[in-house]
Amino acid sequence: MSKLSTITVHAPATVANMVCGFDVLGFAVNEPYDIMQLTLVNEPGITIHNKDNYNLPTDPDKNVAGAALQALMEELTIPVGFDLTITKQIKPGSGVGSSAASSAGAVAAANYLLGNIFSQEDLVRFAMNGEKLASGVKHADNIAPCIFGGVTLIRSIFPLDIISLTAPELFVTIVHPQIEVRTSDARSILKQQVLLKDAIRQWGNIAGLVAGLQQQDYDLIGRSLEDVLIEPVRSILIPGFDEVKQRSKTVGALGGGISGSGPSIFMLSKEKEIANSVASEMEAVYQSLHVDHHIYITTINTNGVRFLVP
Amino acid sequence: MSKLSTITVHAPATVANMVCGFDVLGFAVNEPYDIMQLTLVNEPGITIHNKDNYNLPTDPDKNVAGAALQALMEELTIPVGFDLTITKQIKPGSGVGSSAASSAGAVAAANYLLGNIFSQEDLVRFAMNGEKLASGVKHADNIAPCIFGGVTLIRSIFPLDIISLTAPELFVTIVHPQIEVRTSDARSILKQQVLLKDAIRQWGNIAGLVAGLQQQDYDLIGRSLEDVLIEPVRSILIPGFDEVKQRSKTVGALGGGISGSGPSIFMLSKEKEIANSVASEMEAVYQSLHVDHHIYITTINTNGVRFLVP
Repeated sequence: MSKLSTITVHAPATVANMVCGFDVLGFAVNEPYDIMQLTLVNEPGITIHNKDNYNLPTDPDKNVAGAALQALMEELTIPVGFDLTITKQIKPGSGVGSSAASSAGAVAAANYLLGNIFSQEDLVRFAMNGEKLASGVKHADNIAPCIFGGVTLIRSIFPLDIISLTAPELFVTIVHPQIEVRTSDARSILKQQVLLKDAIRQWGNIAGLVAGLQQQDYDLIGRSLEDVLIEPVRSILIPGFDEVKQRSKTVGALGGGISGSGPSIFMLSKEKEIANSVASEMEAVYQSLHVDHHIYITTINTNGVRFLVP
Repeated sequence: MSKLSTITVHAPATVANMVCGFDVLGFAVNEPYDIMQLTLVNEPGITIHNKDNYNLPTDPDKNVAGAALQALMEELTIPVGFDLTITKQIKPGSGVGSSAASSAGAVAAANYLLGNIFSQEDLVRFAMNGEKLASGVKHADNIAPCIFGGVTLIRSIFPLDIISLTAPELFVTIVHPQIEVRTSDARSILKQQVLLKDAIRQWGNIAGLVAGLQQQDYDLIGRSLEDVLIEPVRSILIPGFDEVKQRSKTVGALGGGISGSGPSIFMLSKEKEIANSVASEMEAVYQSLHVDHHIYITTINTNGVRFLVP
C-alpha cells in the first residue's frame, strides 16, 4: 500500500433548526471544529484513527465518517482506499453537529484528494449516511451548512434541494451544558400532529427569518426567531433554558434557541460586545445551577469545510 | 355640506396564500382593479354609491369599504365625512381579494385626502375591519399586498408585522371559474390539526419561495410552489383544478394554485408568451367543462393602490 496524497481539513460545528426552521435550516460556525487528516491510498478499504479521548469506534461500519466515505466509494470506479485520522474537538452529543462534522469533513477531504469529481450536493448525499448511522435518520440540516458554509435551507431531502442564504454578519454565542439529551429522545417527545394555527405562525416566522437574513434586517431576524412548536416541548429537557434565553435578550441578543436537538443553546447578536455579554449571562446561569459547561463565542462560517493546503 | 377634495383610486386585485404561504403571503396584480372615487366632506358620516351591478350594500355598517372607513374615522379628531362611489370590476366571491380592494382602496384614498397622516400599517389595520365584515376574520393577506403592492409577507397579525419582499418580473394568469366557493366553507373544511412532517415540508417550501423571490431564482420559485396541506383539501371544491394546474405546467408555467380560498386559480410564468399559453389551456379546460369563466393575463402590481391625481 502506498500513500498517494494527504489533506488536512477543519470541519466546522453547525447549528441546525435555527429556532423556527425545524429540520430545514442550519448554519455553520467558525468554532469549534474537528481536525481531520485524510490520506488517499492505492488499496481499497478504510482505516480510521482517533487522536482524541472520545473512544469513538474505529470500525468504518460503525464510525460516521466511515459510513460517509463508504457511500462515496460506492460511486468510485477506481480502486482506492482512505486512511483517516480524526482529532475531534466538537464534543459528541453536544447538539452542534459533531457527527455531521466527521461525516462531512471526511467526504469533503476525499473529494479534494480525488480532484473534486463530486458536487457539493453529492457530498451531502454521502455524508447523510453518517447521520443515518448516528441518529437513524438521513437528515441534512447539519451536513449541508458544514459543506456549503453559511446559512443553508434544505427545502427538500428527497430529492435533495439545498439553497444557500445570504446573511449579514452575525455573532454566535453557544453554551453546551454538559447534560445528556439523546437525539432520539428529543425527537420522540415531539407530537406528530400540530395545530394548523401554530404551523401558520411557524411558517410566517421562517419566511420572516429568510427575508430578514437576505435583506440584512437585524430587527426582522430577531422578531422571527420564535418557535411555537418544538422549543416549548424540547426546552423542558434543558435546565436553565428559559433563563439563558431571557437574560441573553435582556443584554441585547437578537434571539436564539436550542441548537439542533440540544442540549446546546445558541444566541445570535449583531455585535461582538453583545455576544460577550451573552456569554457572561450563560456562564452565570450554569454556574448557579452547578452544571459543567463550555461556551463558544464565534461567528458564522461562510466557507464550510476548510482545506489546509500544505 | 361642502365638498373639500376628491380623489379617484384604482384598488388592485390580490392573490392570497401564494400556494405554500397560507394566511401569510399575498401579492397584488395590475388587473383587475376596482375604481373608487372618494370625496372628503365637512360633515361627519359616510355615504356610499355603487356604480356596478353587484347590488352590494350601501349602508356603511354593512359595506366593507364603510367598515374600513369607520375604523379610520375613529382615529380622527377632526369632524369630516366621506362620500364614496365604487365601480367594482373585481367580482365579489371570485377569490382575488374583491372585498380587500374595496376596504384598502377606501382607506388609502381617505389617507390621501387627509394629507397622508396615517402609515401603511395603519391603513392595513383599518382595512382589516372590512375583511372582518366580509369573512368574520381579520386577515391581511389580501389587504397588505393591496396597500403595499408587490409580494408581502404578513409575519404576524397581532402585532401587525408586514414585510415587503422583492420579486423578479412575473406574469400572472388567473382564471375565475364562475362557481361559488364561500370563504367560510373553504375555511371550515380545513383540518385544525396537521401532521408535523407535512408542516415541515410546507415551511421548507415557503422558505424556498421567499429565498427564490429575493434571489430572483425562477427555478427555485417554481420548485417551492407546492402546498401539501391546504390545496389537496380545497381543490376538491374547484372543478378542473388538477387539469388546469397540470396543463399550465406542461406549457411552461412555474407553478401556481388556488387564489385565496378560490375558486380562482392563478399561475405564475417567467414570460408573457407562456402566460398566454396558460390562458389558452385554462380556456380549453373550462370550455370543455361548460363552466363560465373569466381569464386575466397580468403582472405583479408593485405599487398597490394607484392614485389618479387630477
